[in-house]
Amino acid sequence: MPVGEFELIDQYFRPPADKPDGAGVVLGIGDDAAIVEPDPEQQLVVAADTLVSGVHFPEGADPEFVGERSLRVNLSDIAAMGATPAWFTLSLTLPQDWSEQERGDWVAGFSRGLRRVSEAFKCPLIGGDTTSGPLNIAIQMIAQVPPGQALRRDGAAVGDFVLVTHTLGDGAAALASFTDSAVFSDEQRDYLSQRFYCPEPRIKESVILRALASSAQDVSDGLLADLGHICAASDVGAEVDVESLPISAAAQAPGQAQGRQWALSGGDDYELVFTLHPDKMPEFAMAQARGEIQASVIGRIVAGAGVHCLLDDQPYSVEAEGFRHF
Amino acid sequence: MPVGEFELIDQYFRPPADKPDGAGVVLGIGDDAAIVEPDPEQQLVVAADTLVSGVHFPEGADPEFVGERSLRVNLSDIAAMGATPAWFTLSLTLPQDWSEQERGDWVAGFSRGLRRVSEAFKCPLIGGDTTSGPLNIAIQMIAQVPPGQALRRDGAAVGDFVLVTHTLGDGAAALASFTDSAVFSDEQRDYLSQRFYCPEPRIKESVILRALASSAQDVSDGLLADLGHICAASDVGAEVDVESLPISAAAQAPGQAQGRQWALSGGDDYELVFTLHPDKMPEFAMAQARGEIQASVIGRIVAGAGVHCLLDDQPYSVEAEGFRHF
Repeated sequence: MPVGEFELIDQYFRPPADKPDGAGVVLGIGDDAAIVEPDPEQQLVVAADTLVSGVHFPEGADPEFVGERSLRVNLSDIAAMGATPAWFTLSLTLPQDWSEQERGDWVAGFSRGLRRVSEAFKCPLIGGDTTSGPLNIAIQMIAQVPPGQALRRDGAAVGDFVLVTHTLGDGAAALASFTDSAVFSDEQRDYLSQRFYCPEPRIKESVILRALASSAQDVSDGLLADLGHICAASDVGAEVDVESLPISAAAQAPGQAQGRQWALSGGDDYELVFTLHPDKMPEFAMAQARGEIQASVIGRIVAGAGVHCLLDDQPYSVEAEGFRHF
Repeated sequence: MPVGEFELIDQYFRPPADKPDGAGVVLGIGDDAAIVEPDPEQQLVVAADTLVSGVHFPEGADPEFVGERSLRVNLSDIAAMGATPAWFTLSLTLPQDWSEQERGDWVAGFSRGLRRVSEAFKCPLIGGDTTSGPLNIAIQMIAQVPPGQALRRDGAAVGDFVLVTHTLGDGAAALASFTDSAVFSDEQRDYLSQRFYCPEPRIKESVILRALASSAQDVSDGLLADLGHICAASDVGAEVDVESLPISAAAQAPGQAQGRQWALSGGDDYELVFTLHPDKMPEFAMAQARGEIQASVIGRIVAGAGVHCLLDDQPYSVEAEGFRHF
């Protein structure tokens, strides 16, 4: 345990005195473990996601942004299940070679970003630990969902429509804009940076989708990979109309073809990809018209296996995009 | 996400077909998140603890031992609360520069150790993630406890006895035996290595202590630090009789004085330190006589603050032991 762990936690991670722990927290930060009281009528949804410096965010990134992003990408896993976030824990590994000053500055910024998201989603930090080593942020989420209503990967059926929320490709475009900025305007760079560090977990949308979608998944590894997970779990295939992909102007700054590649294989978008039985389309359209959800039809579920892309009814090939490093 | 994440999870972390997920698991490994059904009559206890290579275990340590230790130290946090383990998630960061072969070999051993402990404590792995970066193992535990019965740090009162389970100092002695082995016999080295890699989470004992102890904490940072947490949370002080400390022969191999220093400040023991009101001593003694718990009285709670050590009624000074690195 690093010197100063308790001081760090006390100073930066405890809830302020005027803002108590939040609903269901019996014992928050400070003991060996936290005690919470879930709603006895609901099931628990549990997820964990890790961010590594130099892998999931650039080394030297603003710690406040890193804090924002860390919690947001974890909340996205919860959105993918149609659940309501309840509490989270944080396992924070901080570099041994940082001075007390560096450590304090970083944690101050990080905890500010984290708290902002935590408060916005009413999902308090209840515990965890800090330790020494290469910078690593592991977050574990606990959420709640009415029994049997969670969105899963294994419910897609032949004939279902495939939809995605908002736009795809911004995550990959943001990564490109961090290193090759000449292609993007200042405004586009700002927009992409915001999309990268502050992805919007589609919690609100996913609660609506509980009653509508036959399957759902968040787009973290890229549309093809993530829709592929739905296909594999549901034992079906999918066709994607490349022309229908919703792509922002910023993600198409280097050209439409690049934008499409990013939308298909880029990842880091944290939008939802989901499937709808045709009978559910009218109800979905009403929700869309009421402004409760924004999503586009991009394809359909077919018999077979795997995801196939079509442009003008011809197969469309996608460059495999490997794992990225900064 | 590293290439091969899904294969790794499928191959090593999914429960075998003949051993289903376990009690309360509605949806285990494989979706965006797991779904579990807690006992509606109980509260949830949530803890998280991280192990970093080169900090919490030697670099190059047998991955099977690392798997054992990772889950055991996390279970120890649950024991400190008097709770019953239910489920856990794993956030596993594996070095980018490992070959597929190295990665596979390490995960095979690690998952074997993890599963052995998971099965022994009926606490299944329900989810998590694997990612690339410097080796880091973050585990989050979810446990259950009847409402109001959790052991906490803040219940110690003046006049209570202070006790610890089994022996102290083995964790620190083990670390010494890894590098300076001449002092220890082969048998002692084996014993200490076992105590280090396979600490016994005192789950069984802690369930008995629910009805007896006024406070409890596991000894991970060292007795003085951990008993200090009880004192701070309970607004009391403590006196420790150095002569009463239970110390194994192995931990005293370099001499009694060294053994005592390790027992007081060494850490990594994962025993329980707890306090008992004198009225509870008879019931405790009966449980001890029945073999349900083994613990020694090492001191008492006094008015004031902080932990004071006494030997032959004289103040006994303890070397501050800083944070260790391998």
